[in-house]
Amino acid sequence: MLPDRSFFDRLADAARAQTMPLFRTGACVTNKLEGGFDPVTEADQSAEAAIRALIERTFPGHGILGEEYGNVGLDREHVWVIDPIDGTRAFISGLPVWGTLIGLYRNGKAIMGLMDQPFTGERYFADGEKSVYRGPDGEKVLSTRNCGGLSDAVLFTTSPHLYTGELKERFEALQEKVRLFRYGCDCYAFALLAAGHVDLVVECGLKPYDVGGLIPLIEQAGGVITNWQGGSAEMGGEIVAAGSRELHAQALETLNGRRV
Amino acid sequence: MLPDRSFFDRLADAARAQTMPLFRTGACVTNKLEGGFDPVTEADQSAEAAIRALIERTFPGHGILGEEYGNVGLDREHVWVIDPIDGTRAFISGLPVWGTLIGLYRNGKAIMGLMDQPFTGERYFADGEKSVYRGPDGEKVLSTRNCGGLSDAVLFTTSPHLYTGELKERFEALQEKVRLFRYGCDCYAFALLAAGHVDLVVECGLKPYDVGGLIPLIEQAGGVITNWQGGSAEMGGEIVAAGSRELHAQALETLNGRRV
Repeated sequence: MLPDRSFFDRLADAARAQTMPLFRTGACVTNKLEGGFDPVTEADQSAEAAIRALIERTFPGHGILGEEYGNVGLDREHVWVIDPIDGTRAFISGLPVWGTLIGLYRNGKAIMGLMDQPFTGERYFADGEKSVYRGPDGEKVLSTRNCGGLSDAVLFTTSPHLYTGELKERFEALQEKVRLFRYGCDCYAFALLAAGHVDLVVECGLKPYDVGGLIPLIEQAGGVITNWQGGSAEMGGEIVAAGSRELHAQALETLNGRRV
Repeated sequence: MLPDRSFFDRLADAARAQTMPLFRTGACVTNKLEGGFDPVTEADQSAEAAIRALIERTFPGHGILGEEYGNVGLDREHVWVIDPIDGTRAFISGLPVWGTLIGLYRNGKAIMGLMDQPFTGERYFADGEKSVYRGPDGEKVLSTRNCGGLSDAVLFTTSPHLYTGELKERFEALQEKVRLFRYGCDCYAFALLAAGHVDLVVECGLKPYDVGGLIPLIEQAGGVITNWQGGSAEMGGEIVAAGSRELHAQALETLNGRRV
C-alpha cells in the first residue's frame, strides 16, 4: 500500500511543528564540520526525528534515507528520502525560501514527493500522477512552462561559488546564454519551476535528500530533471531541471560543451 | 502635519491591490532599455500610480521621487520616495522577496519608511521613532542585533555580478571576512537586518528609491546605514547597512581598504 496525500500532510505538519517555533528566533547553530560552516539547527534534527517516527510506525517495511540520522534499509522496494530543512542557510538568515523535502522512491525511482514552506504556507505535492499546489495562491494543479529556448529562460542556482574548475566553466557557459539568472533559493527554485514561474534550475554537489522529494514535483508537472549527463537525478550530484524537454536538451548541450 | 501609520497602510494596500493580481501570472514584461534586461511589469507602474494619487490628494504640498513616473518638487520640505516593486527580477520569477518601498524625507533626511511584502503578508514600518513588524510572526517592535564582529556576521547582497573593478575587489575583501554570505534579496535583506536576523547588507549602484524607504527601518531599529564613505545613504549609490555601530565601522574599514 502506498501513502496518500493525507499521510504526506501529516509528515509535513509534524515537521512544521518542529521548524516554525525555531524560525527567526536566533536559536543556536551548531557546526557539523569543524572549520567549515555547515549549520544545522535544532529544528533540522527534531523535524527529521518527527518525520521518521511517523514513517516507521506506519510503513515499518520501508527504508529511510535522511540527512540528519543516517540510512535504514536502502535496498528495500520503498525508500523515503528526507531533508527536514533544505536551505539551512536561508533558515538561519530568516529568509522563507527553505523547505521540508520528503520523497518516496520505489526501486530507486522517485515516485511521490513534497516540498513544504511553512512560513509562506505553501505546500507542493506530487501524488504519483500530478503535482498540486496549496497556499496563498489557492489550490491548483501545476504545470511547467515552455519558454522557447535558452535565450528566453530564467535560471536559478543556489550560489556561483559552489562551482569550481571545469564545472564552473560549464555552468558559466550556460549562465551566459540565459535571459535572467538568480542566486540563492535551494529547493524553492525547483518548486517555482514546477509551478511554471521559472525555466531552469542547475545545481552541483547535491545529495540524494536535496533532490529526492523534488524530482516527482518537476516530472509530474511536465518538466525534466536529470544529472548533467542526462542520467537519473535520484542519487543527486550535478543536477539540471527544465520546464520543457527542448530546453532541457539545450541546457545539457551547453553544460557538456557541445554546439547547440 | 505628518502622515500616520494608517496613511502608510493605505498606500501599501493600494499598491498591493495592483501588484498581487499580477504576481505569478506570467504577465508580460516590457524592457525599459533596449538591449539590457530591465523588467518593469504592469504591476510596477500601476502600483506607483496608485500610491502617487493618494499622496497628491492628501499631501499636495509634498514632492515625489518615484521609479516609474519621475520627480515632482524635490526641493520641497517633504518628499516621498517610492519604489513600487523593489526586486522586479524576484517579482517576475515568482519569488516573494520583492517589496513595495515608501519613504518620506524631510529636508533631505529619511524620517519615515515602509517595506511591504504582500505575498508573505509582512509589513515593516518606521514611524519616526521605532520600527515595527506585522506579519506571520505577529506584531512587534524591531531591533537589530549586534553579532560581535565581521567574523560572526551574516552578509547579504543582491548579486556579486553588480560589482566591477575596484568596487568588486573591495566587496570581495569584505565577503571573505564574514561568517556567511547570501545573494539575491533586494529590499527583503534590509528588512531582515532591521528585524535582527542578519547583520550586514551591502549594495552598489542603488537609486534613492531603492533605499529611501529602508533607511528609517534600519535606523529606528538600532542599525546604521550609510554609503561606503560613511556619508548619507539618502541619495543611494554604494550602501552598507549594519546591525550595530561597531560592525558598521569594521565593514567601512574593510570596504575602504584600511586595516581593521
